[in-house]
Amino acid sequence: MSILVVGSVAFDSVETPFGKADDVLGGSGTYFSTSASFFTDVNLVAVVGEDFPSEHVDFLRSRNIDLTGLTTAPGKTFRWAGSYGYDLNEATTLDTQLNVFASFSPQLPEAYLDADYVFLANIDPELQLDVLKQVVRPKLVACDTMNFWIEGKRDALINTLKYVDVLLINEGEVRQLAAEANVVKAAQKVLDMGPKTLVVKRGEYGALMFTEHGVFSAPAYPLENVFDPTGAGDTFAGGFMGYLAGVQDMSDAAMRQAIIFGSVMASFNVEMFSLERMKSLEYAEIEDRYRKFQLLTRFSGIDE
Amino acid sequence: MSILVVGSVAFDSVETPFGKADDVLGGSGTYFSTSASFFTDVNLVAVVGEDFPSEHVDFLRSRNIDLTGLTTAPGKTFRWAGSYGYDLNEATTLDTQLNVFASFSPQLPEAYLDADYVFLANIDPELQLDVLKQVVRPKLVACDTMNFWIEGKRDALINTLKYVDVLLINEGEVRQLAAEANVVKAAQKVLDMGPKTLVVKRGEYGALMFTEHGVFSAPAYPLENVFDPTGAGDTFAGGFMGYLAGVQDMSDAAMRQAIIFGSVMASFNVEMFSLERMKSLEYAEIEDRYRKFQLLTRFSGIDE
Repeated sequence: MSILVVGSVAFDSVETPFGKADDVLGGSGTYFSTSASFFTDVNLVAVVGEDFPSEHVDFLRSRNIDLTGLTTAPGKTFRWAGSYGYDLNEATTLDTQLNVFASFSPQLPEAYLDADYVFLANIDPELQLDVLKQVVRPKLVACDTMNFWIEGKRDALINTLKYVDVLLINEGEVRQLAAEANVVKAAQKVLDMGPKTLVVKRGEYGALMFTEHGVFSAPAYPLENVFDPTGAGDTFAGGFMGYLAGVQDMSDAAMRQAIIFGSVMASFNVEMFSLERMKSLEYAEIEDRYRKFQLLTRFSGIDE
Repeated sequence: MSILVVGSVAFDSVETPFGKADDVLGGSGTYFSTSASFFTDVNLVAVVGEDFPSEHVDFLRSRNIDLTGLTTAPGKTFRWAGSYGYDLNEATTLDTQLNVFASFSPQLPEAYLDADYVFLANIDPELQLDVLKQVVRPKLVACDTMNFWIEGKRDALINTLKYVDVLLINEGEVRQLAAEANVVKAAQKVLDMGPKTLVVKRGEYGALMFTEHGVFSAPAYPLENVFDPTGAGDTFAGGFMGYLAGVQDMSDAAMRQAIIFGSVMASFNVEMFSLERMKSLEYAEIEDRYRKFQLLTRFSGIDE
């Protein structure tokens, strides 16, 4: 079962305490599709400029990502520059050049219109809704957003959320969206806005999933080397949605396992700059780390 | 099997966004013993001043805590005042009056000398070692410490750690003690100092336990109302040690379950000021919340 994702394909320049990478492949659509491609087929809708090199297109193709929806527009590709301090939890944006992304108004290719699984990456909530309107009866719609839209396009965002099944956002964004400091209370307020499932991403502290069934708490994988957290959230979402689309199951059990697969994918992605770790990743490594997550959390011990 | 704990018994004045409590019962020894008393017998070594009211002594007795080691010295009881902001993760100390605690030099009662389980609460590491030297071949020794001792009495602390099995400290203290920003690397450095087990307390993000068997990640219970985090760490340690002493098992499985019982106890304690929640707590509630922790973390879902 294939997933439709609408998001950005970009050049990132990133500085962390461990090194520096200039004009490397990035963007929410890129991270999401690459991660999801380990589990299912992916249709990517995005725009790049004339400066986007064929090597990146080749990489996406090598992951079997359908690029019918990737258009090239006159001008330059979206560029983002940011830096991280030692805590690695929050990026400082140094520069944003929207370029061709400024006039991004996604028209879905005919073949994408009956998508069952849709991920609306972090773009203008009005565009998210425009895209969603083009899809005929999707089974599962997930979306991301950020403080910029929560502040600047609150009404549009709240309108879009009415049509969304799963919202995946950071803990700070949950608090901001609900205007409530306590995460449990804030989560309830967000669920009242429409989504049946809220996934609260907490970086190195893992994730919480709130549903009608209750709360699921997933750890982050304790890593010795977190090199670059850029794209971790979209990689997480890609593993989550990819797994669900792959197994075609939306039970609470499947959702919990999807959260762990999302966490697994994010834990790999932060080990290297850009999508470098994804390029060498094998499915057997994903299964192995899933088992390590089980050992990490089970109450019954590992010495017996 | 009984536990010996050496720590403070104090008056706390606490301000949180949700209210204010003046001169209420507090102290590391108090929180630890009360929490542990739900699982096993506790022998408390501490000092109070002549102003310590009999109602607090009566409460500790009502929990079957042995107070042979609780001495009354001329002068006033230790007083601490602090406040918390909305994030509730870190207290700002407003006032500390050591009073009788300034000359605390614990001499163990004869009946305590063969203790099997020992908890050295957050006091001067030299005093911790003095106490430990008085005990004849304990089976399990755990201790707490804080930034004040890590900075000010680093050598003494490192010397004490050689004789400790389990160290329970905050994430920031782990980083400070190891002089290492990455928690996984920092944990390994701390294990190299002597303790076989390191419990990293992360407040609302739960706890990590590092041992030779690997890592265990425990969630915090997602609470709608966190009223007062004072004493959460000592209450956690009390549940952890209390459970281990109660079951007399130090396998990895028992240690993991002990971490969850510690988390359960802390989750109750933060629901009200001082030890108010402990006063009404029933063992059945502890078991019930332990089961909720299982549901919170299990991968297999709760809808089947």
